[in-house]
Amino acid sequence: MRRAEFEVNADANPEEITRFMEEMSFGFLGTVAADGSPSMTPLNFVYVDGSIYFHGSRIGEKMTQLKANERVTFMAAKEYAIIPSYFSDPLLACPATAYFKSVRVDGHAVVVDDPREKAAALEALMRKLQPEGGYKTIDASDPDYIPRLKGVAVVRIDADRVSGKFKFGQNLKQAERDSITTQLADRGLPMDADTIALMKQFCPHAQKPVGD
Amino acid sequence: MRRAEFEVNADANPEEITRFMEEMSFGFLGTVAADGSPSMTPLNFVYVDGSIYFHGSRIGEKMTQLKANERVTFMAAKEYAIIPSYFSDPLLACPATAYFKSVRVDGHAVVVDDPREKAAALEALMRKLQPEGGYKTIDASDPDYIPRLKGVAVVRIDADRVSGKFKFGQNLKQAERDSITTQLADRGLPMDADTIALMKQFCPHAQKPVGD
Repeated sequence: MRRAEFEVNADANPEEITRFMEEMSFGFLGTVAADGSPSMTPLNFVYVDGSIYFHGSRIGEKMTQLKANERVTFMAAKEYAIIPSYFSDPLLACPATAYFKSVRVDGHAVVVDDPREKAAALEALMRKLQPEGGYKTIDASDPDYIPRLKGVAVVRIDADRVSGKFKFGQNLKQAERDSITTQLADRGLPMDADTIALMKQFCPHAQKPVGD
Repeated sequence: MRRAEFEVNADANPEEITRFMEEMSFGFLGTVAADGSPSMTPLNFVYVDGSIYFHGSRIGEKMTQLKANERVTFMAAKEYAIIPSYFSDPLLACPATAYFKSVRVDGHAVVVDDPREKAAALEALMRKLQPEGGYKTIDASDPDYIPRLKGVAVVRIDADRVSGKFKFGQNLKQAERDSITTQLADRGLPMDADTIALMKQFCPHAQKPVGD
């Protein structure tokens, strides 16, 4: 069940969504095969103005599927702290959970043919994944890149809906939340400090009303 | 295009697949919605004897979809080193890539009704995600757990196919692979040492022939 308190909306929080998609180097493309079964592929991607771009071979399962059925979904997710049951219940396993961010883009896949758009997408991907540079800028008019741009497939996902779920204990009462942040601070695992900061950022009373 | 050199087969390498699925705390469930569009959900999971188990609310989008269409896919993936283009080409961006492991389970979702199987699956999930213990063992005959087991949905994915892609430069010539491992060692980012070990483990001449 999708719980409203964990939702991070692309309309209300576009910067949070964008920042997360820029942080995540890879995500998962969901497609539907010709026989109606779901398919999935891990992909490096770049998020530009609300669209996803990825590249790959011009032939193969993924391209066949998205040409036959352009409806796709794309998701990136990052797990933060795993919250053990004993943080809130000394006996039962039930409260064990994990805090995470996920963003999902539902939309239509478009195979990009324009070499300038292909070059711009691949250049954006390079700046994301290789920010230190060390390569010649990808330019659609560069003779070195012209044949290579022809040889690679670039796909854009035009989003119908962008939705995020950032789960950081928003459903807890203040005393429960305080107890968990204290125990995370004591535990001090690598993701715990970031988790505490996000619990504070996303706790309901820290959120500004929409439109404020 | 799925390239054979990156494939890690569940028949030939069941231990590699199992070890990876035990290491990964979460993955992605791919389902197909009633209107034929793909859907995706991030989930904590446990991999037991070639099947995936996960749990969740008894109502909601995911349960509705998998009851209507039991064909699902499930994937876990981990990114290792990002290999910059300049490790192999001083000029062009094209060789930039990322090394990763991914495992995908295609199969049929079965909603588990038997309380003993539910308890065993949730106990296996707890042992994976909370190995330090600190809770009472989940037992289908324990009065504390009986109502809670009734209230939670547990789903098993019976696998028709388990396939892995472990991409660690298996397509490179030995001199190219050596050059990349040397540069990774010099760079020394957090994932680089693990990546070098996996490049050595999975390089073609280190692989034993199937059946050996």
